[in-house]
Amino acid sequence: MDILSILNWRYATKRMNGQEIPEEKLERILESIRLSASSVGMQPYNVLVIKDKDLRKKIKAVSNNQPQIAESSHLLVFAAWNNITPQRVEDFIDRIAEVRNVSKESLGTMRAYGENFLKNTEEQNFNWAARQSYIALGTALIAAAAEKVDATPMEGFNAQALDELLGLEALGLKSVSLLPLGYRDPENDWLLNLPKVRTAKEKLFITDEELEAKVS
Amino acid sequence: MDILSILNWRYATKRMNGQEIPEEKLERILESIRLSASSVGMQPYNVLVIKDKDLRKKIKAVSNNQPQIAESSHLLVFAAWNNITPQRVEDFIDRIAEVRNVSKESLGTMRAYGENFLKNTEEQNFNWAARQSYIALGTALIAAAAEKVDATPMEGFNAQALDELLGLEALGLKSVSLLPLGYRDPENDWLLNLPKVRTAKEKLFITDEELEAKVS
Repeated sequence: MDILSILNWRYATKRMNGQEIPEEKLERILESIRLSASSVGMQPYNVLVIKDKDLRKKIKAVSNNQPQIAESSHLLVFAAWNNITPQRVEDFIDRIAEVRNVSKESLGTMRAYGENFLKNTEEQNFNWAARQSYIALGTALIAAAAEKVDATPMEGFNAQALDELLGLEALGLKSVSLLPLGYRDPENDWLLNLPKVRTAKEKLFITDEELEAKVS
Repeated sequence: MDILSILNWRYATKRMNGQEIPEEKLERILESIRLSASSVGMQPYNVLVIKDKDLRKKIKAVSNNQPQIAESSHLLVFAAWNNITPQRVEDFIDRIAEVRNVSKESLGTMRAYGENFLKNTEEQNFNWAARQSYIALGTALIAAAAEKVDATPMEGFNAQALDELLGLEALGLKSVSLLPLGYRDPENDWLLNLPKVRTAKEKLFITDEELEAKVS
């Protein structure tokens, strides 16, 4: 299946049927998240993989009672690092040295990239980390759809309440988005048969010729 | 090609060979961006598609002289809306009414979603819009790689200088990321043969059992 077909197949599933995702599909979706690009390769976030039904019911209660949270097979929580710390920079350098089999001393440029973040405010670093997590979210949407697994990206939840519920502060994390994974319930999903709405091509893209005409 | 192979094939190409991308490949990459998910479906960004060599040389000069900006076939600039305005909410509602062939009056819930943003500060709305653009950026990376087109996501540029150069303020936009599209130059790209570094699975993902163990 090509990427355009995958993107046309997927939609923000509003109701799911509770069916479980086979383990190997889940693994491929998670691996696609792991392989996602990120700026300087730091991957400044964690992804919680929540299967427990009782916990998902509690999460639903702080997420505008969106039914997919409980009706899905697994719930992913994308949680960005609340800051970039010296330890996180050290782990980043350690990982490069390990995978590329080089000395940490040879990674001065990468270390400088990492240590640059230590000069920023906590808020700046969190905002940057949150943005990076959206690359992984976008990747997960495509990877799920490629497996014919439905997924609903969600921002409509009380992030502070969720962070408390999951104890994320102690882990140096803040929740940013949710992604229930499961299977659509065609009988109850009002969105399934509505046409996908996207900005028209000529409104979304601006060519250099158009830019010149607009600016002058 | 499956998604994992696509993600493993791509890398942040450091040098490109100047070869042009066939028009139909570019069109499919742009269409994948257009079909990307976004919160409430607002797609609060524009994407500049820049082919002009002279303009790209000027952009390179405010982007740490990264060579791919000039060596690519096309440069995409992801520029987020600097704010959500009443006009943008109106356009959003108009578009849904048009595509779904319903009256604007029937779209009260969607209008409420849109008008909620009008209560936020400009900075909050820009940050939200910027995050959404990263879903599209992540999609573009996969769509390009599926076409065997190389792409380099970049945040290392002077956003203020670029906004001035492109006259983005007059368009209500702020640049967020760059994406040169083209073909790798295997002889000069030092990154091509280095192993991809990604966080280990057991460090990136946290299961509910692990969460319970960490918190208690």
